[in-house]
Amino acid sequence: MAPKSTLSADQQAEIDALRGTRTETLRATSAGMEQHLYTAIPVLDHGFVRVIDYMGDDAAICQAARVSYGRGTKSVQNDEGLIRYLMRHWHSTPFEMCEIKLHVKLPVFVARQWIRHRTANVNEYSARYSILDREFYIPAPEHLAAQSVVNNQGRGEALEGEEADRVLRYLRDDAMRAYDHYEEMISQDGQQGLARELARMNLPANIYTQWYWKVDLHNLLHFLRLRADAHAQYEIRVYADAICSVVADWVPFAYRAFEDYRMGGATLSGTALDCVRRMLKGEEVTQETSGMSKGEWREFKGVLEGGRSN
Amino acid sequence: MAPKSTLSADQQAEIDALRGTRTETLRATSAGMEQHLYTAIPVLDHGFVRVIDYMGDDAAICQAARVSYGRGTKSVQNDEGLIRYLMRHWHSTPFEMCEIKLHVKLPVFVARQWIRHRTANVNEYSARYSILDREFYIPAPEHLAAQSVVNNQGRGEALEGEEADRVLRYLRDDAMRAYDHYEEMISQDGQQGLARELARMNLPANIYTQWYWKVDLHNLLHFLRLRADAHAQYEIRVYADAICSVVADWVPFAYRAFEDYRMGGATLSGTALDCVRRMLKGEEVTQETSGMSKGEWREFKGVLEGGRSN
Amino acid sequence: MAPKSTLSADQQAEIDALRGTRTETLRATSAGMEQHLYTAIPVLDHGFVRVIDYMGDDAAICQAARVSYGRGTKSVQNDEGLIRYLMRHWHSTPFEMCEIKLHVKLPVFVARQWIRHRTANVNEYSARYSILDREFYIPAPEHLAAQSVVNNQGRGEALEGEEADRVLRYLRDDAMRAYDHYEEMISQDGQQGLARELARMNLPANIYTQWYWKVDLHNLLHFLRLRADAHAQYEIRVYADAICSVVADWVPFAYRAFEDYRMGGATLSGTALDCVRRMLKGEEVTQETSGMSKGEWREFKGVLEGGRSN
Amino acid sequence: MAPKSTLSADQQAEIDALRGTRTETLRATSAGMEQHLYTAIPVLDHGFVRVIDYMGDDAAICQAARVSYGRGTKSVQNDEGLIRYLMRHWHSTPFEMCEIKLHVKLPVFVARQWIRHRTANVNEYSARYSILDREFYIPAPEHLAAQSVVNNQGRGEALEGEEADRVLRYLRDDAMRAYDHYEEMISQDGQQGLARELARMNLPANIYTQWYWKVDLHNLLHFLRLRADAHAQYEIRVYADAICSVVADWVPFAYRAFEDYRMGGATLSGTALDCVRRMLKGEEVTQETSGMSKGEWREFKGVLEGGRSN
Repeated sequence: MAPKSTLSADQQAEIDALRGTRTETLRATSAGMEQHLYTAIPVLDHGFVRVIDYMGDDAAICQAARVSYGRGTKSVQNDEGLIRYLMRHWHSTPFEMCEIKLHVKLPVFVARQWIRHRTANVNEYSARYSILDREFYIPAPEHLAAQSVVNNQGRGEALEGEEADRVLRYLRDDAMRAYDHYEEMISQDGQQGLARELARMNLPANIYTQWYWKVDLHNLLHFLRLRADAHAQYEIRVYADAICSVVADWVPFAYRAFEDYRMGGATLSGTALDCVRRMLKGEEVTQETSGMSKGEWREFKGVLEGGRSN
Repeated sequence: MAPKSTLSADQQAEIDALRGTRTETLRATSAGMEQHLYTAIPVLDHGFVRVIDYMGDDAAICQAARVSYGRGTKSVQNDEGLIRYLMRHWHSTPFEMCEIKLHVKLPVFVARQWIRHRTANVNEYSARYSILDREFYIPAPEHLAAQSVVNNQGRGEALEGEEADRVLRYLRDDAMRAYDHYEEMISQDGQQGLARELARMNLPANIYTQWYWKVDLHNLLHFLRLRADAHAQYEIRVYADAICSVVADWVPFAYRAFEDYRMGGATLSGTALDCVRRMLKGEEVTQETSGMSKGEWREFKGVLEGGRSN
Repeated sequence: MAPKSTLSADQQAEIDALRGTRTETLRATSAGMEQHLYTAIPVLDHGFVRVIDYMGDDAAICQAARVSYGRGTKSVQNDEGLIRYLMRHWHSTPFEMCEIKLHVKLPVFVARQWIRHRTANVNEYSARYSILDREFYIPAPEHLAAQSVVNNQGRGEALEGEEADRVLRYLRDDAMRAYDHYEEMISQDGQQGLARELARMNLPANIYTQWYWKVDLHNLLHFLRLRADAHAQYEIRVYADAICSVVADWVPFAYRAFEDYRMGGATLSGTALDCVRRMLKGEEVTQETSGMSKGEWREFKGVLEGGRSN
Repeated sequence: MAPKSTLSADQQAEIDALRGTRTETLRATSAGMEQHLYTAIPVLDHGFVRVIDYMGDDAAICQAARVSYGRGTKSVQNDEGLIRYLMRHWHSTPFEMCEIKLHVKLPVFVARQWIRHRTANVNEYSARYSILDREFYIPAPEHLAAQSVVNNQGRGEALEGEEADRVLRYLRDDAMRAYDHYEEMISQDGQQGLARELARMNLPANIYTQWYWKVDLHNLLHFLRLRADAHAQYEIRVYADAICSVVADWVPFAYRAFEDYRMGGATLSGTALDCVRRMLKGEEVTQETSGMSKGEWREFKGVLEGGRSN
């Protein structure tokens, strides 16, 4: 859980004021999402995700798929069936008809991964104009993972003892010193002060930044499939998990279909499907007779045993 | 004005029912847009534009530009100034934070121009699944323009007399005959019936189609700059004009800035700016001494005399 | 096969001249693609696909994935393994580093499906400026399919006898008449002549248009997965098939991985994977006990029996 | 100028080997670009831009605009006129038919600005898999600018004396210490070693990263207009300037048109055009009578006096 200090008292007061202001609208409204508006979900030690705005709901997906004149719902059951059909057959355009706008506070190294998803709109806090706050991500000890020995991208067990202590000390001390010097460099106390756009280069990648991020539901689900996945870096996965909980409340039918077809599903190659067919006929298939490489075979076995390959 | 037949009684009833359903929301709401929701603006003889949903307002543009915690408004005056600044300096990302979803009914040849704007989401009525209606765009006599003799893209004066009559007769008769044959081909009356995805190929480009079109404000303004322009084909310009009237009610500050900097403005080349400077110093500049081609010079003179070059 | 008349003698001469002009380059060159340059692959009765230009090859995919200084190839075997790994794990960005530019001649109703793939660059022949040719797609009798009775999107058996004759007669006659009137309307023989941008609206959707289409390999493979699929409309599938044959020569490793993981593969939902696991343990699973709808179960059985579900 | 150490001897040898390998091609070839292939242009103290590949040339722009069968050139003069026309009238799609692929080495804080241009393909060196090099951007003393007092985004004069010394000392020492600790944290010398994906968070934003960046000419020119502009941060502007020199050699007609219409030109608002018209008629227009804000008026005067407003 994030400490209470994620939002300042002023910021919390501003947000609370907005939660008190309701207006009438003719637009499609999602009761689940109204609960999330102007509520920050804490993530990591100083970060958050909060919903600023949204467009559409499950019915809007169906309405667009049918290019209908009214709200496009014949029955709730039909809507869920249609949404599952669209998801199963990769008909992505109706999902693009829903949109969400989030305010996210996140470490810079997470932001650098996140921004690689290009089909989205972003406004980031500018370190050319403004002064960044003294807030850095310091991992909790249980997330201080060692380099994986089986996979050069992943993480192994958590570090312990002296090694863990030293890492935390480095991360904390270097961040504080870098920020002290950042402050000194831009200070105008009896001197000119270095341009902010230059001084920021001294700050490490665990400093927090923030942005407004707006994306349609199709592209959001694609982001979530990659970033809520077990292979994603822990520090971005917790943001993806927080967003998953929002989407489940916003468009419950679409989210359930996503869980079944994307998060819980797996894509099998032609070679892998052939192996399944042979196995179902009773053949004992091994890696050697499978036609797969060792890596593929390991992933394939993982899928058959209940894991996820990709 | 469009005839009343643009919407059927059933369609109108569905829409009217939705206008009666108001819900409370915590989201930013634009009073001007609420008036447009579930109201079809007639365009051409059978087409329309109607607003299905929207996200954001003028304040939301500023809120995103400031990455603010609250609604982001210090004062209304500041907001308009900030929006003008953003527009003037091509800071496009805050405008991307507003989104609009339209239901549009339009002739196929207009749809083919429209779809070239790729940064948008589209769900079109499917002529593979469904049967198209017998509705064709037939120009009003005053829009039956001759090919321009000065510009091979544009239009000249309206046709008259016998020539105009013949054109209208061809357009009407060919459309009716093509539709009759379309109906006959897909008919299963004692036969199999041609697949709809094939039969549609007999239909001319003035048949009406419809789609849901969702776009952010930045990309919408870009669309409007090109399609509400005097050089755009009349049949798409009337759609752009209808949308302009919606945007003016939705985000009045952004729309006024757009009118001043984009629609009413002009981009002058370095060569053209040099000419302006020389002219302001009293020099008599001619095409020959301007460094411009004849075409450029004609457009430049147009700008100085109050037209628009591009 | 397309008739020889797809290209005029002048056009063929222009293209032949270009095939004779070779220059030296330092760029990555694909021997397989050089064979395709300036050669039109006939598609349907008057259409074609021809490769205008390309960027990159299999090695370029690996070079980008490794962000390497040289050509990025340690061994050919490593390259194929890396490409399969990238494809299997949806690492799409290295595939985006290859690009292809095609000149395509295609019926308008095919163009309307094709253009829905938005991540591409397009220049279409302008019917505002120019006069379209009298060329229409008329299906071969064996492709004159009836509406499917099991699937409202697909096709059934080919029409026969009188019904087929009537359809062909309608398509041919209506196209010819529409074109005659198009020509008459724009004619300036003793009159003004209707603007081309208006006259084109009389032309049916089986008239041929043409465009330059440029796309990166990742987005091209996505297009091919959807459009070379058995569920795609025949008239776009033949274009996709022609492009598949080009890609196989251009980037053979990437194409083989695409065939195995995308075209020959299938995405199974979490529910479907559970069924596979139960079946492998010897359980007799039926639609009723599967947790799937009838439609899903039918598709699932199709996959297990060697078809493709999506 | 960059020190020779930008590329290692091995890297240089790999690149040199490739410059020796020429193959024949039927594709459009730009003599100016062949000179740039496999040559790194040094930028900042350790960065570079080098051209990996390209597609198209000036003639290809015209060929696409005409959707032509041959190379599309009637005469060189016609080609330049057509390109100027296309640029002047914002016909952007023909420029999208050219593509360039660059390998860029750049500081992370520059990369973070750069990546905001979303319409491009990127493969960045992964700090999850790989270990970053000990290379940091340290500004030359003359670029150690103070915060601007007139514009909170820009830079003022260069710092001097003790203040400059202190800034350089901080930047160097903090970078070295952060890197020492990075190395220690990931070291496996008798311990587990922190996961690379975590250790990187200790590194400051002036560390160098590198990527492959591929973009079409239209989007590249848009990038250059914003980033080669006098208001852009110096550290990204030098990259834009290096790329400008490449583009000038690649597509000289397009680049000249870009210089005249975009870099040397200015967009005037409707209000500003009105003022120009009044001034040309002899009226003395002041800020008070102009209808512009003080900021707009200052920019407008800048344009009339030979600067650039946006």
